[in-house]
Amino acid sequence: MSTQLGMNSEPRVLDWQAIRDIGIGATFLGAGGGGDTYSGELQLQQALEDGLEVTMISVSDLSDEALVAPCGWMGAPAVQLEKYPNGSEALQGIAKLEQIKQQPVAAVLAIEIGGQNGLSPMVLAARKGIPIVDCDGMGRAFPQAHMVTFNIYGCSASPIIVTDEHRNCIVLETDNNLTEEKLARHIAVGMGGMCHVVDYPLTGYQVKQYAVRGTVSLAEGIGKAIRVARQQHSDPFEALFNFLRGTGYYKHPYCLFDGKVVDVKQKIQDGFCKGTFLLEGLGENPETFQVDFQNENLVARRGGKVVGLVPDIITLMDRETAQPINTENVRYGMRVKAVATSVPPILRRPEALAVLGPQAFGIEEDYVPLEELNGA
Amino acid sequence: MSTQLGMNSEPRVLDWQAIRDIGIGATFLGAGGGGDTYSGELQLQQALEDGLEVTMISVSDLSDEALVAPCGWMGAPAVQLEKYPNGSEALQGIAKLEQIKQQPVAAVLAIEIGGQNGLSPMVLAARKGIPIVDCDGMGRAFPQAHMVTFNIYGCSASPIIVTDEHRNCIVLETDNNLTEEKLARHIAVGMGGMCHVVDYPLTGYQVKQYAVRGTVSLAEGIGKAIRVARQQHSDPFEALFNFLRGTGYYKHPYCLFDGKVVDVKQKIQDGFCKGTFLLEGLGENPETFQVDFQNENLVARRGGKVVGLVPDIITLMDRETAQPINTENVRYGMRVKAVATSVPPILRRPEALAVLGPQAFGIEEDYVPLEELNGA
Repeated sequence: MSTQLGMNSEPRVLDWQAIRDIGIGATFLGAGGGGDTYSGELQLQQALEDGLEVTMISVSDLSDEALVAPCGWMGAPAVQLEKYPNGSEALQGIAKLEQIKQQPVAAVLAIEIGGQNGLSPMVLAARKGIPIVDCDGMGRAFPQAHMVTFNIYGCSASPIIVTDEHRNCIVLETDNNLTEEKLARHIAVGMGGMCHVVDYPLTGYQVKQYAVRGTVSLAEGIGKAIRVARQQHSDPFEALFNFLRGTGYYKHPYCLFDGKVVDVKQKIQDGFCKGTFLLEGLGENPETFQVDFQNENLVARRGGKVVGLVPDIITLMDRETAQPINTENVRYGMRVKAVATSVPPILRRPEALAVLGPQAFGIEEDYVPLEELNGA
Repeated sequence: MSTQLGMNSEPRVLDWQAIRDIGIGATFLGAGGGGDTYSGELQLQQALEDGLEVTMISVSDLSDEALVAPCGWMGAPAVQLEKYPNGSEALQGIAKLEQIKQQPVAAVLAIEIGGQNGLSPMVLAARKGIPIVDCDGMGRAFPQAHMVTFNIYGCSASPIIVTDEHRNCIVLETDNNLTEEKLARHIAVGMGGMCHVVDYPLTGYQVKQYAVRGTVSLAEGIGKAIRVARQQHSDPFEALFNFLRGTGYYKHPYCLFDGKVVDVKQKIQDGFCKGTFLLEGLGENPETFQVDFQNENLVARRGGKVVGLVPDIITLMDRETAQPINTENVRYGMRVKAVATSVPPILRRPEALAVLGPQAFGIEEDYVPLEELNGA
């Protein structure tokens, strides 16, 4: 395998503990989106029981010529709570890509580290016997396929391979990357609201240039901090914040609100989960807090004032356990903390904000970094 | 070309007169659907002016091993009145099929002879320098992709190639042929309500087994009968009926109603034109006549009594000129005759009616042949 990848070091084997930690961290980084990690964890548990290994390499371990496949699920995350994968979808997509490219796929990576999509490439990697790369294309989760660094920095999404649990396989070659989002979204709806996507086939060189690096390790660190604090009966939020402050770019964490969910407006529309959460303060706190979301939490307003804006990460977490909560799982009455943290510069540059900043979602406010909104 | 096709005879060259006649006949056979032939006629006029030829062969001229591509447009016909093809769609689809099959396409045929889809393969054939085959897959037009003899009699729709005017190209491999209709319909909506489809790639042997034969010639005969009657100032309906009575299977024509359009309910929904026309009798005639349609006219009721049912052909025609009228062109106040005629046994057998009979459209009434409803 080393030869094929041109790797500088042996791949790391991810054990069950690491996978569970990554699941928690990925859910936090998902900002409410990317899908519930439960089915991914079940599939990984099964893979490990089958004697398979999940291995991970660094971006720098890739040879420049390697074919690397970003992959993940597209659709409304709430759908995946009931419409489970059958396990063939990703393998079929990768096989089709290899057939088209006439080249073996050397490694896979998560289109987005957030939520289920942070775990699902591991299932594929274990079944296929290739490593995942410690990186992703979003540094969090975003609701649309073109909201990925590979698009922002000029890579082509095509050929795009969409598969479903009935072994339907659709290959798209589109005139531009935005068309992928439009057409694949229609296909996702046609496939019942959820489908598997392999897109932006990359060379190792492109991964080195444009991926958000180290985000699988980041997710693991987040999950581990929360887990260890729980085990030690210390404050998991304090542990999370301490860990984040030690990272390169996710280092400005804030607790934006502490309260309970008093209203959930949620609908599945055009292949997305869309809606609004309303929170009220606990006890005598008269403040209200509102989060608007489209799969992911996009904007947070406390007392009507904006305190967090996409692409910075806004995640609701159980106020006792610090368990991050996907938007589709938020329920009336939940006691939560709304936690936000900053994202890397690759997502904050003007060319990135044009694709995935507030205006890309119809939000009027201009982007202001989280740490400016809340005091550095 | 003869060698490649293994043909028994030289292909016939279709001149402008023949093309115009086929256009009128295809509109009649379209039962209101298949799209307006105007843009197809413009494209064929241009092709002839460019010195290209439209050639046609018989089904029996095909070698058993030849690769034959059914093709046509999918979507809501009303959309094509404003969203014109750019001419690349069909050629791109055929080129992709040849690439996948690693075999040249020897000839093309109309998925449906009805409407624009009866003419559009000729544009492709002229540009590509291959013949059309004198046959189609529906013997008329139907609104859904699986309502084709090739599906009814067991051929696979895959690979299905969908293209649009932006040179987007989508290849579908589906678990069954009904899934093509579902997913390609979503893609058609995503592409703006209309797209070009190459599906059911066939061998010459399969064409011989399952195509509805001679339907291009049939369309030409219909158009010619109407044209000549107009030129001779004789009754075009009488000429049409006389011609139909001399055909093999379309030989039971009826004028179901003579009146004016007093109500048009029409909407574009889920990638179809759907609705109802209401007609009133002229002069002292107190009767009313209702046609329900989904792209094509599906059921006709005179005074509430069913007098025509899909798959028999029901077409509204200008009561003076016998010009057949597509559903998307029917307007309040038009004076029309509602003409119906029988279809070949290949569309009336139980296995065919299960796919394209009244119940397939949610119509309660069981299919009764037109000649039984109206007296043979």
